[in-house]
Order: sequence, then structure tokens, then C-alpha cells
Amino acid sequence: MSEDKSNQYNAPTEVKEIDIVNTFELEELAKEVMPSGGYGYISGGSGDEYTKKQNIDSFNHKGILPRVLADVENPDTKTTILGHNIPAPFIMAPIAAHGLAHATKEAGTARGVSEYGTIMSISAYSGATFEEIEEGLKGSPRWFQLYMSKDDELNKLIVDEAKKDGATAIILTADATLSGNRETDIRNKFVYPFGMPIVSRYLSGSGENMSLNNIYAQSKQKISPKDVEFLTSYSGLPVIVKGIQTPEDALLAIGVGASGVWVSNHGGRQLDGAPGSFDTLAEISRAVGNRVPIIFDSGIRRGEHIFKALASGADIVALGRPMLYGLALGGWKGVQSVLEYFETDLKRVMQLAGTQTIEDIKHAKLFDNARYK
Amino acid sequence: MSEDKSNQYNAPTEVKEIDIVNTFELEELAKEVMPSGGYGYISGGSGDEYTKKQNIDSFNHKGILPRVLADVENPDTKTTILGHNIPAPFIMAPIAAHGLAHATKEAGTARGVSEYGTIMSISAYSGATFEEIEEGLKGSPRWFQLYMSKDDELNKLIVDEAKKDGATAIILTADATLSGNRETDIRNKFVYPFGMPIVSRYLSGSGENMSLNNIYAQSKQKISPKDVEFLTSYSGLPVIVKGIQTPEDALLAIGVGASGVWVSNHGGRQLDGAPGSFDTLAEISRAVGNRVPIIFDSGIRRGEHIFKALASGADIVALGRPMLYGLALGGWKGVQSVLEYFETDLKRVMQLAGTQTIEDIKHAKLFDNARYK
Amino acid sequence: MSEDKSNQYNAPTEVKEIDIVNTFELEELAKEVMPSGGYGYISGGSGDEYTKKQNIDSFNHKGILPRVLADVENPDTKTTILGHNIPAPFIMAPIAAHGLAHATKEAGTARGVSEYGTIMSISAYSGATFEEIEEGLKGSPRWFQLYMSKDDELNKLIVDEAKKDGATAIILTADATLSGNRETDIRNKFVYPFGMPIVSRYLSGSGENMSLNNIYAQSKQKISPKDVEFLTSYSGLPVIVKGIQTPEDALLAIGVGASGVWVSNHGGRQLDGAPGSFDTLAEISRAVGNRVPIIFDSGIRRGEHIFKALASGADIVALGRPMLYGLALGGWKGVQSVLEYFETDLKRVMQLAGTQTIEDIKHAKLFDNARYK
Amino acid sequence: MSEDKSNQYNAPTEVKEIDIVNTFELEELAKEVMPSGGYGYISGGSGDEYTKKQNIDSFNHKGILPRVLADVENPDTKTTILGHNIPAPFIMAPIAAHGLAHATKEAGTARGVSEYGTIMSISAYSGATFEEIEEGLKGSPRWFQLYMSKDDELNKLIVDEAKKDGATAIILTADATLSGNRETDIRNKFVYPFGMPIVSRYLSGSGENMSLNNIYAQSKQKISPKDVEFLTSYSGLPVIVKGIQTPEDALLAIGVGASGVWVSNHGGRQLDGAPGSFDTLAEISRAVGNRVPIIFDSGIRRGEHIFKALASGADIVALGRPMLYGLALGGWKGVQSVLEYFETDLKRVMQLAGTQTIEDIKHAKLFDNARYK
Repeated sequence: MSEDKSNQYNAPTEVKEIDIVNTFELEELAKEVMPSGGYGYISGGSGDEYTKKQNIDSFNHKGILPRVLADVENPDTKTTILGHNIPAPFIMAPIAAHGLAHATKEAGTARGVSEYGTIMSISAYSGATFEEIEEGLKGSPRWFQLYMSKDDELNKLIVDEAKKDGATAIILTADATLSGNRETDIRNKFVYPFGMPIVSRYLSGSGENMSLNNIYAQSKQKISPKDVEFLTSYSGLPVIVKGIQTPEDALLAIGVGASGVWVSNHGGRQLDGAPGSFDTLAEISRAVGNRVPIIFDSGIRRGEHIFKALASGADIVALGRPMLYGLALGGWKGVQSVLEYFETDLKRVMQLAGTQTIEDIKHAKLFDNARYK
Repeated sequence: MSEDKSNQYNAPTEVKEIDIVNTFELEELAKEVMPSGGYGYISGGSGDEYTKKQNIDSFNHKGILPRVLADVENPDTKTTILGHNIPAPFIMAPIAAHGLAHATKEAGTARGVSEYGTIMSISAYSGATFEEIEEGLKGSPRWFQLYMSKDDELNKLIVDEAKKDGATAIILTADATLSGNRETDIRNKFVYPFGMPIVSRYLSGSGENMSLNNIYAQSKQKISPKDVEFLTSYSGLPVIVKGIQTPEDALLAIGVGASGVWVSNHGGRQLDGAPGSFDTLAEISRAVGNRVPIIFDSGIRRGEHIFKALASGADIVALGRPMLYGLALGGWKGVQSVLEYFETDLKRVMQLAGTQTIEDIKHAKLFDNARYK
Repeated sequence: MSEDKSNQYNAPTEVKEIDIVNTFELEELAKEVMPSGGYGYISGGSGDEYTKKQNIDSFNHKGILPRVLADVENPDTKTTILGHNIPAPFIMAPIAAHGLAHATKEAGTARGVSEYGTIMSISAYSGATFEEIEEGLKGSPRWFQLYMSKDDELNKLIVDEAKKDGATAIILTADATLSGNRETDIRNKFVYPFGMPIVSRYLSGSGENMSLNNIYAQSKQKISPKDVEFLTSYSGLPVIVKGIQTPEDALLAIGVGASGVWVSNHGGRQLDGAPGSFDTLAEISRAVGNRVPIIFDSGIRRGEHIFKALASGADIVALGRPMLYGLALGGWKGVQSVLEYFETDLKRVMQLAGTQTIEDIKHAKLFDNARYK
Repeated sequence: MSEDKSNQYNAPTEVKEIDIVNTFELEELAKEVMPSGGYGYISGGSGDEYTKKQNIDSFNHKGILPRVLADVENPDTKTTILGHNIPAPFIMAPIAAHGLAHATKEAGTARGVSEYGTIMSISAYSGATFEEIEEGLKGSPRWFQLYMSKDDELNKLIVDEAKKDGATAIILTADATLSGNRETDIRNKFVYPFGMPIVSRYLSGSGENMSLNNIYAQSKQKISPKDVEFLTSYSGLPVIVKGIQTPEDALLAIGVGASGVWVSNHGGRQLDGAPGSFDTLAEISRAVGNRVPIIFDSGIRRGEHIFKALASGADIVALGRPMLYGLALGGWKGVQSVLEYFETDLKRVMQLAGTQTIEDIKHAKLFDNARYK
């Protein structure tokens, strides 16, 4: 059924490698091939989109200081996160409803991620089932991102299913207990054109033809440290709290057992008026003090951004919108092209910045532009 | 007579609920339905409109730091101000001449405010009589805003009338002892198309066909602490001094008996070149030290702005231009729509920021963007 | 002869009062009536016009803090400078070649200044003779601004003539020992369409058909403290050093006998890349410590600017471009209109800022916007 | 052969003096006469071109403070660098492939530089041979800029050849161990239309029809302090390390024998996201402490920029893009015109700033705009 709807929605279907000059262009190109409702949903931010814009602009608040005479050649982007070896310090961010970008839905993304060799984050608001996504993943590592039900028994069922599917970590999204004020979706009267099989057990319907506001409202609002404890205890998996923007919340999450801190403002889609995500990172990192890894997202569009995030305390970053644009433009091959673009770009940045390894980046000193203008 | 003029002026007359995506759009929509002279008067600022612009931009000098894991659900916007319980921390700001926006004049605004359940500020420059406004208010709480006459005997008469009408506080506007340099009105050769019955007893005419400059000049310029003492003593009501932009004036007003401090730059309509109102708030709040409540206006367009104002020391905010745009577009129902929009938006912000109550907002820490760019 | 040329140049000739909404519009209106070469000369700055733009923008680095409850009515703009009582704290700045703006040349400006009652600065690069200017001044106070000759004997002759004409002070322009890089004039191949009778005694010609570069090069480059001593001693008049932008030069000038410090960057016409003139004022004022008066120019377009300059240490300001636009648009009556506009605007600002006197402005505290954004 | 290709490429051939209002216009004019691939290569930066833009904008972070009463006349721009007396504190920067701008290639530039009397930097990526360049240089001083081969024996051969040609210093470019992310070249599918005879001994081909990425990749990546030692020791010439952007690298280079520090971010062509080159200069200069000279490039377009760079610690600056635009527009005469423009402009700035000598500039105090806005 959701298949039929998906056809009505007319998501792109092409599968091909894509040439990428930069990921800003990807957005423009994706806009041309995606239905406007789906494009608006994926590209849009909340409110004035101030925070969305700051996410990218804030990277210019710090400058990379290239170290020359650094004896660097063929920089090595490999790193490890929560026991997984990955070819580069980036993974797929959890995003709802990949079917808006491509008819292959999350399975398409998963295949691109799998072929490249990094970690897939499966969103609870996936439009595909775990089984469908596994067709793309083929055993590759995956983390499961949870929007909790108000009913913990249902949460247990969902966690059980994710574990059975092979998730090696649970991402608890804590910054989206309601939908942000997404004006583009309001203007488009956007509803999901297909269901959300994973969370449909706690929705009043399948998710199909439901608005974002409606779906968020049916998930749990009262997220608290107890939920971190519950998920840690029940799942036996590392739990990463996503949406952290303050040192206080990072410390709180670690205190109740979180195995990772995910610094993010949800791509500027939740609370507009929040600072650019990158602006909040360094202070959080100082509070975390390497006790747990830090995953960072919101605004990564270039290798320079990855470098700056890692030099400010992130262990890895997560890629969101550019990945779905790649999916829209080339299906799984497009996703793989995006990941390869970021690796190529990061390698060039590492070489030019004089850093041989990811560890070198983490010790690089950034330039504080704020002192100069 | 003013009724006839009002018809000539052709103020909007429609009464309907309005769909609000954001209040910036309301301005554009109101521009289409309002006569240009009236629209220019309400929307315009003074001079270069630097201060008017800063009023909105200055909110971006601080960022909201969302607290996650905050155990929040169904945030409660209710609060109390000077003994009144109101559903949300906002009231109607005093504005002159609502008849420019809608044929129902202040009575229309009053009904929308009354139906919603918050406090109406009645301007001394109202185009409607107390009796006409009461038709909309129907016993709801109201504060009376005074532009003083040069003759205190007339001020006593006006205060007597306001008390008889049921005002529970006097707002003394102290930042408008002359008209600001409103170039739009000068270009439009704007004159009020109807009289001002409340202050007509001290004008050389009814107010009809008189310019703003002319009317302001006939009111009292020499506002001093003695006026606060006089009004406090004569009225026996709490007196709130409006237009305060410095800690010094806040302390001065409190010292002579003011029961409230109203931080405002008159929506950027008086002295251009003054800082954005929000930029001045935190320092004033530190000086006030909770001895009297702080009311804040100038630039509130979103729930995020209300949150930032309260987190910077305001107890409530007052809404001005957006309310008159709501009035223009939908009469009393439009006014009610605007108030409901702000409540909905504030609730979303509270949920996403992790604040259950208004008191929680007042204790929230903001992010200082100035340190980063 | 220069009269014939002036006719060929086709300077405006109309004499009328002008309605002024703001002085920015005056510039646009003047552009329509003035020949393009003359307009480019008067309106243009040097290089990228960064400094010219900063002159106006820098006023927004500080905010006026309106004091309410200030017991102010009918503020008094009168002040005194070097023994002259003037109706408001502004005078005419020295500018070359008023004949570019109006056929009545400096005599037109002088009459407007005289009718208003403030001080005329007569430029050494005047296109009119002292006698012609006196026809407008009619005995009103005047200061004489000197571009020195390389030959002190000629300087003595010029000073003698200025004294005989009644100058009560000598303004030594020290920031223009060469022409700034005025690209507009270069593109227009601008040459003066008439002679400069006062300095023609040291030029290789009358000044007519000579470029700015040519004329500046024939005046003295090696301006030093000795020139201040020479002029002070020879003239017996107060000498004001114009073009000071550092505390060091202010102290140096005072040390060799200057009776006034004129803070200016020549309206952004000399060294581009210098800071906005207003940004340099407060520090210079602290160094001067009220030992001599400070005259300020560069960027004054509104009453708010005059207020900010005085609150930052200036005793009076000088008006340049807006005066010549007034001259272009209305001859001497236009000049008078500009002066009256500034007085009206300053009075409004004083009332709204809560300052009764010029002395009150000098004690007003400004708001430091730089701390907030 | 490369001659034939060059004809196919259709580089400009005109030789003439050019009138220069400013160098920004030169860029626009050069764009009209140059083939788009070559123009894109020369004008383009990397990534978002943030760093390229900052290179010019960052000069506005500091202001020149004109000193008046400074007793200056006919300022003297002459200076000395590494034993060479030059007429003004600027030299030709090393740039690849001048043949993109003009059919006379590096020989054209060399002649203009030689006629003016300053130092030519010969790039290892020159499209002309040493012999061809000598036709323009005619014995004038030259420095040789090296992109190292991975094979030190070949490096020795190249250094030998440069020494034989008369180079008095070796510039080791250390910030370009790979090509920057030059999107314009990617879009243009730009390849060099002619060979690079100097480095062709270590390329897989002549350089002709090869991309920048390809050529850079064939040069040496692992640049380290040992290379500075090797070049110093083998050549017996002063070695200047180019591309330094941190105090740490300046100290490192000096520690292993560098005779000069060249502060540069390669005109914003290498690592985008690096700070504006001027923003990094003062701190590096403090670290260097006059032990070796500092050469500065990236963003010099006006005499003001040269002044600010010298006042921030540079001993001389190097001119890049404007020189190639001059070459494109007028061949060697155009190059000479550009150099003369900069001298004229610098002299004017020196006069207006009150500095008689280059040493005076080095002791000038700049104004910190960052404190004010």
C-alpha cells in the first residue's frame, strides 16, 4: 500500500554515480528531481531558519591554521567509533522518510552506506522495514535511532526488533519531543506519502497521510534521564543521546549511563534561535573530557567542516541532508558518491592542513576569527 | 462624525479567524487591506529605522540553549502579573488609533483580548471611548495608558474616568514626550482620520485631521519623577513607567513608587539610534532585582522572542504591531488568532527548550552569540 | 572669466526654501540638479569609499540611551565656541569650490549661514573672493581655513587678507597634504571649472581647469608643528588643527599652541582605510581632557549623529556635504533650510533623550553596541 | 609545440601601457581579454572562496591612523630585502603559467618587473624556460620558487639550473602539497594548454594538457623541515619558506635555517576556511621578532594594503593576480604599469599617513576596528 502511495508521490528512481563539485549544488540539483513537498520537508528548517543558516555560517567563526613542513603524505582518514572501524570519521545521520528522496527508500541509502563501509543510522521514522533496509545493508553495521512511544512496553518491542536486526547502539533523540516550527511544511500542507512501519505500532495509523506535527505528538514528550537508564538497562546496548547542545546535558547524560554524546540541533529543524551547532561544540567537548565519544552533526557540507568539528572535540560527524540529496540524484550509487566526495575532500584538507591522522586533527589548533572582526 | 470619517478612511471591516504561519506575513497581508496612511503609521519606525530593525535583530544576539532530558510535557504558559492571572505571559500593548486597522476600533481589539483572556492596555490616544471599548472587553481586566496633559486637573479627570472604567493599573508612557521622526508619516502627510475622545479634552480639537506631531506637542513634555508620584498618589493604582531603557531610570522610577518597569523603545518609533530593546533588558533586570515586575515590548514576533525576553528578566511581554495586523485582517477574531498563535508557538518553544513553566524560562541560561562571531 | 566658465559649467541657480525629510534624500535630489563632474567631486570619497561609508555606519557602534522622567521641555541648543554664541552646536565646514553646487558660490552658502546665525568656514580653495563672500556674510562670524603655500611669505599675505576680512580663527587643514585617491574624479577627468582667487597667488594658474591633484601638489606638503606655531604667532588668532584622528596628534597640536582640535577624516575623501571618524572621537576626547574645544566632522547626517558626537567629547560639529546639497537645491535659502532641519532634528533628539541643554548631552552615557553583537 | 598550443589557447598579445584606476577594475578588464579557462584558473580560489574573500576583507579589520603635522614630503618607498635594493617594498609573487595571461609568458612579466627594477619570482611551474625568462629579465634579480620533486636528485638538478640562471634565493612553497579545491577549474575541466619545462623532468609528461590536480600530485607531498635543511645546504642560497600561517611554523622554519618567512595562504587557492592572510600576520611577526625578513602576500590590491601589511610586521609584500591582469592587458608594459600604480598609490598613502620612509610605516600603529563593532 505504501508502495502505491510512493508511486503516486513520484519519488526519483534513477541509480547512478554522481559527479559532485560541492554539496551545495547537490541541493539545487535534488530540488529539480524531487517532488516539492518532499524537498521542502528535507531541506527546510524551522522558524526564520536562523539556526539552520548559522549551522553553516558558524564554521567560519573559526579558521583552520594550515601547518606546513608537516611531513604529511596520503593522510589516513580511518577511525574507530564504539568498536566499529570505519574508513572515515563520518556516518549516516538518522533521517526520517528516505522514500521522499528515492523510491528505494532507506534500503537505497543503506546500500550506499554499506558499499562505502560506514555506519547506517536507522531512524524510527523510517519508511522501510528493518527487513527492507537489510536488503541494502547486507550485514553492515547499523545504529538504531529511537523516537520513544509514550508506552514503554511498545518501546521494549521496538528495541527488541532493532536488536534482532543487529543494531549495535541506540540513538535516543532528545531534542525533538515535538515538531519544530517548519513553515515550509505548513505551507505545503505536507503529509508523509507512506507509512512508518517501525513506529506504526504506537501511531493512530500507519503514518501515511499524517503530518509531522501529528506523528511527533503521538511519540513521547517527557524524555528524561530515566529514559536513558531504561534504554541502557533494557537494551544492553550503548545508548547515545542525540540533540545535546549544552555542557550540562552532556554531563547529565553521561551521569546516567550514556555511552555517547551527540551534539546536534537537528539541522536547524527544531528550535530556531538556538546557536549554530558548531558554536556549542567546543565547550561541550571540554565538559565531556573524552569520557565518551562525541558525534556531531548540523551543517557539515565540506571536508573543512569535518576538520573543524574534529578539531573542536567531535570524534566523528554524521551526514544528513547531503546524503539524501545524493540518494535523490543517484539512489545507492549517489549515496556512495557523496561519501566518497567527503572522503576525498577531507583527505585534501588533511594534507593541506598538515595532519596525517584523525588523531592529528583532534590536536589541531583553530584560529579564533571572533578576535579579529 | 468620526464615524463618517472612519468610513471615508475605509478601514477594513472583515471579522474572521486567520491562519497564521508567522507574524511577518501578517504584516504583508495587512498592508494589502489597510489604507496606506494607516498602514504607514502603524508599521513605520523613526529615522533610519535602525532601532526598529535592531529590535528584531537583537534577539539573535543571544541563543536559546535547548535542555533535553528535561522531563517536560504540556508546558504551562500561565502566569500572574500585578494580581491578574493570565493564560500566557503576554498582554496587549497600548497603541493609538486602532481604527486605522479596523472599523471596530479599540472595541474590536478589546473583544479579541477579552475572549483570549489576557489584559487590554487602553491608550489615551484611543479612537474609541471607554464605553465603546467596554463593549468589547465585557468586564475583562484593563490597564490605562496615559499621555499626560500639561494641566494636572485634566489629568485627574482622565484618571478618574479610567478608574471608573475599571483600570487596575496606570501605564505612564515616558519615552514619547514628542513624536519620533516618522518619515513615512511625513511623506504621507498623515493625519488621524478620526478623533481621540479620551484626550480631546486637552487638545485644541478632537484629534481628527490632526498630525501626530501636533497631538504629541499638545501633551505634556516635562515628565518627571513627580508625575509618577502624582499618579500613584492620586489614582491609588499601581503605576507602570513605560519606555525605560536604562538601569538608572528603572531605579529612579522604583524609588518614586512605580509598581512596574516597562522596558521598551516604543517599537523603534521614538528615538532612532537607541539600541535594540532586547539588548538593554538584561542589565535593567539586574538593577531591578525582582523588586517590581518588568514588562517588555519592541520586536516580539515569535515564541522564541518571548522566551528570550523572559530568560533575560521580563515577567511578561506586550504585543503591539502583530495585534493590529490581526485586527486589520480579521477584526476581534483576528486578534484572538494572533494571541492563540503566540501561545501555541510559545508552548512549542517551551517544550523544545525543556521548560515546563514560565518560572523555568526565567531561570534558563541563554547563549552569548557575541562571544563567537 | 571664471564667471563665464561657471556659466558653461551650468551650476544650479534656483533660490528657494526646501522641504527636508532627511539629508540622505538631499543627496539624491542634488544629484539630479548638479552637473555630474561637480556632483562626483562633492559626493565622492577616496579608494573603496570604505572610510566614507564607515563615517556614517560607525555612529551605530554606539546607541543613545533615552533618559525618561528627565523633566525636559523645549530643549536649548545654544552653545558657545571660541567666544562665539551660536544657536546650535554646528557650523559650516570648510569645503572647496561651492560654485560646483550653485552659481552664487560661497556667497550663497555664506548668506544661508549668516541668516541662520552660525559660523562660516571659508576655504582657501574658495571659488569666490573674500569680498564676494562678505556679500553673503554681512558681518557674520567666519573662520578661515588654510591650505598652506610652500612659501611662508605668501602664507602671511593670505593670513593678512583673511584677518582683514574678519576671520576670528584659522583652521589649519593638516590631513590633506595631497589629494586623496578620488576615483570618481579620475574617471570624470574632473577639473575645477573656475579659479580659486584666494590661493591663486601660489598656484601656477588661477585654479581654473586644474585638477585637484595638481592644486594639492602645489600647496605645502611638509606640514609640521612649526606651522601651527608660525600661524599662531603670526596671526594672533586661535589656530584649530583639522584632520586629527589620534590622541597623539591632538596632544602634539595642543602642545604647540593650537586653540582647538578638529577631529575629521575629511569626509572619507583623503586616506581610505582610516577608521570611521566617530570611532576615533572618544579616545581623542579623553586625551584632550577639555583643554581646548573639539570640533568634529565626517558623517553627520541626523540630529542623532550630533548627539552621539557631543556625548563622545565633541563641543560642536561641522556640516559639509548636506550643506552643499542644500545650496545646490535652493541657494542660500536651501542652506538655511538645512541648518534649520538640523536644529529641529537635534531638538527632537534632545527632548526624547532627556537632555535639556548641550551640556546635558555632553554628560550623556552612550550604549556600547559592540558588547552585544 | 607548446608554442602552437599557446596559439590555440589564444592568449592576449597586446603590449601597451595601461591606465589604472584601481586593480579591481583590472580584473574585470582582464576577464574580457583572457580565455575563460585561463581567467578562471588565475582569478579563482578554492572551495567557497571564503578565504580568498577574507584576504581582502581582513584588511578592514585594522584602520590606518593618519598622523598629521608629520613633516613629510616626497615619501621614500625604497627598501632592501635579502641584500637587494628595490624601489618599493613589493616584488613579483611566484605564479604558475603566465602564458595563460599573455603570449609572451613569464618573459613578458619578467621584462616589466625588470624595467621597474624589483625582484622577479620564477615559479617552478613556469611555462617558459629560464632562458626565455632571461630575455625579459636581462640580468635583473630573481628568486626561484620550487615545487619539489619526490626525487631529491631531480630537485638538485632543478636547483642547479636555477642557480646557474642567477637565482639569489630559493622560495620553498610549503602550503601546496596538493591542489586546493578549485571548483572553477573543475567546472571548466581546465588543463594547462602548454608544458612546464622546468618541472617537466619529474612529470609524466610536459605538463601540457595536464590538470592542476595531476601535476600537484606528481610533486612532493611530504615537505618537512628536512627539505628546508636540504635546500639550504645544497643550494647555499637563502631559503624562504612560503605559505606560513602560524607562529609555530615560522619558528620551525627559522630553526632549521630558513632565511625568510613568507606569510601567505596562496591567495585563497589552497585551504579554504583558513583565516584571511592579513589576520594571521601580526602574531607571526611577533614570533619572528625581526630575526629573518617577512614577505607577505594574499589580498594586496591597494597602497593601503601594503601599508597595513608593513605596519603589521611584513618587510615587503608580493603581488600576484594584479600583475597577471596587467600582463594580460598590456604585456610587459602592463606589468610595469601595475608596479608603477602601486608605487604611486603607496606614496600617496605614506604622505597622507604621515610616514616618510618604509621604516616609519613599520612603526606605525594601526587602529583595531574589532574593538568598535
